[in-house]
Amino acid sequence: MRQPVPLPQAYRLLNHGPTVLVSAAHGGQRNLMAAAWAMPLDFDPPKVAVVVDRSTFTRGLIEASGSFALQVPCAAQADLVTTVGNTSGRPLAEAGTDKFVVHGIGCFDAKLIDAPLVDGCVAWLECRVIAWPDLQRAHDLFLAEVVAAQADDRVFSAGRWHFDRADAALRTLHHTSGGAYLLPGEAVLGRVIDPK
Amino acid sequence: MRQPVPLPQAYRLLNHGPTVLVSAAHGGQRNLMAAAWAMPLDFDPPKVAVVVDRSTFTRGLIEASGSFALQVPCAAQADLVTTVGNTSGRPLAEAGTDKFVVHGIGCFDAKLIDAPLVDGCVAWLECRVIAWPDLQRAHDLFLAEVVAAQADDRVFSAGRWHFDRADAALRTLHHTSGGAYLLPGEAVLGRVIDPK
Repeated sequence: MRQPVPLPQAYRLLNHGPTVLVSAAHGGQRNLMAAAWAMPLDFDPPKVAVVVDRSTFTRGLIEASGSFALQVPCAAQADLVTTVGNTSGRPLAEAGTDKFVVHGIGCFDAKLIDAPLVDGCVAWLECRVIAWPDLQRAHDLFLAEVVAAQADDRVFSAGRWHFDRADAALRTLHHTSGGAYLLPGEAVLGRVIDPK
Repeated sequence: MRQPVPLPQAYRLLNHGPTVLVSAAHGGQRNLMAAAWAMPLDFDPPKVAVVVDRSTFTRGLIEASGSFALQVPCAAQADLVTTVGNTSGRPLAEAGTDKFVVHGIGCFDAKLIDAPLVDGCVAWLECRVIAWPDLQRAHDLFLAEVVAAQADDRVFSAGRWHFDRADAALRTLHHTSGGAYLLPGEAVLGRVIDPK
């Protein structure tokens, strides 16, 4: 079940390095793409950084709306992530449709932004762009403030992921290459060692 | 065994979102810190982005030298990562020593930069800062070009991670919070699905 995540804990949704889906909407159009290059940028207020290539249809929607959603997909969605990561929304938009329609991807309304949030993910972060036009142009890099966050409490609650308590299909995806992903497995705890 | 990684494949060392160690050296001083907030920024020439807080001793060494190394530690190093991530090199430097000495951390010379590379990691990326002074100041965010890369061929070869063929102690660390890490587990393959 989806539950709000307090903003100071939102960075933990991305801290372990999952591949994300990026969605955006503007002027009656919407799109969805995959991105392995996303990370937290600050704790509180939470901020994120994500690379969105200039060739993507999503890029224009982000620049026009000033907002986007990052969502953390799970193993059950590996085909969906690979599909939206390897197809463009531009020809679909020109034909008057979009990836949500042609691939039957369910979504629901965000709380504070226009971007659609994808059903079946395990976390959602609503983001408002912090404008760095030169940075966007030079490196395709977008910085944003997280203004709302939610997570599926079967795998994230009390500020922590706990994949071991739920179905493996709910584990996050960590893209290596070519549509291959690693899922989180064993957990280990590091200790602070005193100097010798 | 350490092997060079061709630069166009270097992004794959970070693509699945591992926590990294950041090392830097300048003027006879050196330091090592942990960072969960690092990601690829471009393919070829490869670039990276990493958050290095202004309070860290490493930050000054990076700004003074214009370079740093990112290295990908493994499960066997969970205590090392947690230790260097929770202690400061500044008081040690003032006492004429450093984390490498007081924690007995072995290292070897980088090929193209001054930063020490840590023994026992599974990948190493030598990075030269791409100066964005305003970005560094506003968001503690550093962009850099990767000028050399190496990986341990027991777990990374031919451009791919293959953790299933080696000891679990060589798996990468993905920090959740409080010194707890998830290791990569099962692999899944996503397919591109035709529109409905």
